[in-house]
Amino acid sequence: MSASSIKTIISSYSAQVDAQLESILPLASGPAEPLFAAMRYSVFNGGKRLRPALCFAAAEAICSSDSNTAKVAAALEMIHAYSLIHDDLPAMDDDDLRRGKPTCHIQFDEATAILAGDGLQSLAFQQLCGLSEVAPSIVVELISMLSRLGGCSGMVAGQAIDLAATGTALDLEQLKVMHAHKTGALIEASVLMGAVATAQASAQQLAALSEFARAIGLAFQIQDDILDVESSTELLGKQQGSDATNQKSTYTSILGLEQARSEADALYRRSMQALDCFADKAESLRAIASFIVQRRH
Amino acid sequence: MSASSIKTIISSYSAQVDAQLESILPLASGPAEPLFAAMRYSVFNGGKRLRPALCFAAAEAICSSDSNTAKVAAALEMIHAYSLIHDDLPAMDDDDLRRGKPTCHIQFDEATAILAGDGLQSLAFQQLCGLSEVAPSIVVELISMLSRLGGCSGMVAGQAIDLAATGTALDLEQLKVMHAHKTGALIEASVLMGAVATAQASAQQLAALSEFARAIGLAFQIQDDILDVESSTELLGKQQGSDATNQKSTYTSILGLEQARSEADALYRRSMQALDCFADKAESLRAIASFIVQRRH
Repeated sequence: MSASSIKTIISSYSAQVDAQLESILPLASGPAEPLFAAMRYSVFNGGKRLRPALCFAAAEAICSSDSNTAKVAAALEMIHAYSLIHDDLPAMDDDDLRRGKPTCHIQFDEATAILAGDGLQSLAFQQLCGLSEVAPSIVVELISMLSRLGGCSGMVAGQAIDLAATGTALDLEQLKVMHAHKTGALIEASVLMGAVATAQASAQQLAALSEFARAIGLAFQIQDDILDVESSTELLGKQQGSDATNQKSTYTSILGLEQARSEADALYRRSMQALDCFADKAESLRAIASFIVQRRH
Repeated sequence: MSASSIKTIISSYSAQVDAQLESILPLASGPAEPLFAAMRYSVFNGGKRLRPALCFAAAEAICSSDSNTAKVAAALEMIHAYSLIHDDLPAMDDDDLRRGKPTCHIQFDEATAILAGDGLQSLAFQQLCGLSEVAPSIVVELISMLSRLGGCSGMVAGQAIDLAATGTALDLEQLKVMHAHKTGALIEASVLMGAVATAQASAQQLAALSEFARAIGLAFQIQDDILDVESSTELLGKQQGSDATNQKSTYTSILGLEQARSEADALYRRSMQALDCFADKAESLRAIASFIVQRRH
């Protein structure tokens, strides 16, 4: 698949999830207006919508995506957005810029940013309760996955591990554990939830998708570390070289640039193998995976 | 019912919810250990377990409480605990003491406190997914209630309204709207979810419980404001007179002490009337309501 057709696919998914997010997060008035403004600001800040794209593509690997896929994708994006808001706070990474724009606590204030994150998390679960024409047992399975992989057994634990590691050098194994939680868990949730929401995924298919997601999730993070060394602040929309400045352990600091690249390649190949059982149905997943390892920002 | 038997009832509910919380939040080891320590610290800090008590008592008003009631009560208490952690943060109320002990961000650090709150929120939803012997449609209804009333349509909106009101004088109507969201919504969720989890509550019973909860929720807040004027720092476990110091609009600042008392009494009577249809089954709810308006801290 060509680079331009990959972009076309991702754009089409983005349009669907954006329409859904627009309907959940309308412009608000009334006394809680700043809260809703901050939630909208953070959700519509030019993100790549990678998790929604994985969710749609996974649904298509099983059968096809539908309006429920967009709702599940919106829930995932809200969890992602809330985690970025809290991660950027002064007490956490203290970042002023995100995708070239002021972070939520800079644009609004710290208290509003904390609440906007809290509100987005609960709204994600509320959103999943509104799925239509799907058995309640499927809804419970989706909420269970999102709360586990997006919570203190997954993403939130990853943030805590990252925090505890500040100022200490991690070895490769510790770095993998951290990233498997911090970014990997929600990427896995995106793929699995897209499949589960179709109500047609077999245990075997879910196991294959899980293997795909874990490999590509780690490759995503390695590519992030490579870009932090290689790219420019302008392209990244955040300070280039910030990992080195903050003395963070990264794949490039532990493995060096060349070996980090070959590790990302190996993970990409492993993710492709995991998709073999889906044959042509996984074309979009393959396209997104190659986008992940080839992206320049 | 005598004051001592009310305490006995609340203690028995507390013991059940504490056992449940203990099983969900075990002492952790491993790289995310500080996160789990902070979550435990905040959940087990001597809270009155008022929301769990309302949840149990509402289940008994419908039929009886069981192990699912304890799980629902634990989810409610985790949402309550997360909201207190975030509310105490320097960017929010900047409180160093909670129930006479250092607040989470003082005992640990700000970043860990933010993550502990985030983790408790997701764990509450995860917990509800684990209800047994109840139809998945009931689980979805419970999660829908908790995400709506505990989220940006309820409690989180209340925090945002409170925040936006800082430094401005609220009138009585605005104050009621703020509290109906900030504390009222989760009290309503506690009562409704206890009833819904029994799978036997009729729409009429839920409407009566909702009316009860709204009245007693507001009475709770008025009593809080009265205690802030009348009680001592020692009894409250937090700075007495802090509302006046922070120039917050309160029921006592708007209505005066005497009228605030008679408003609380009127709401108490309204809450009792709402329970008439439950006859003897609502004895525990009545006891908790009278505890709420009579408490001294």
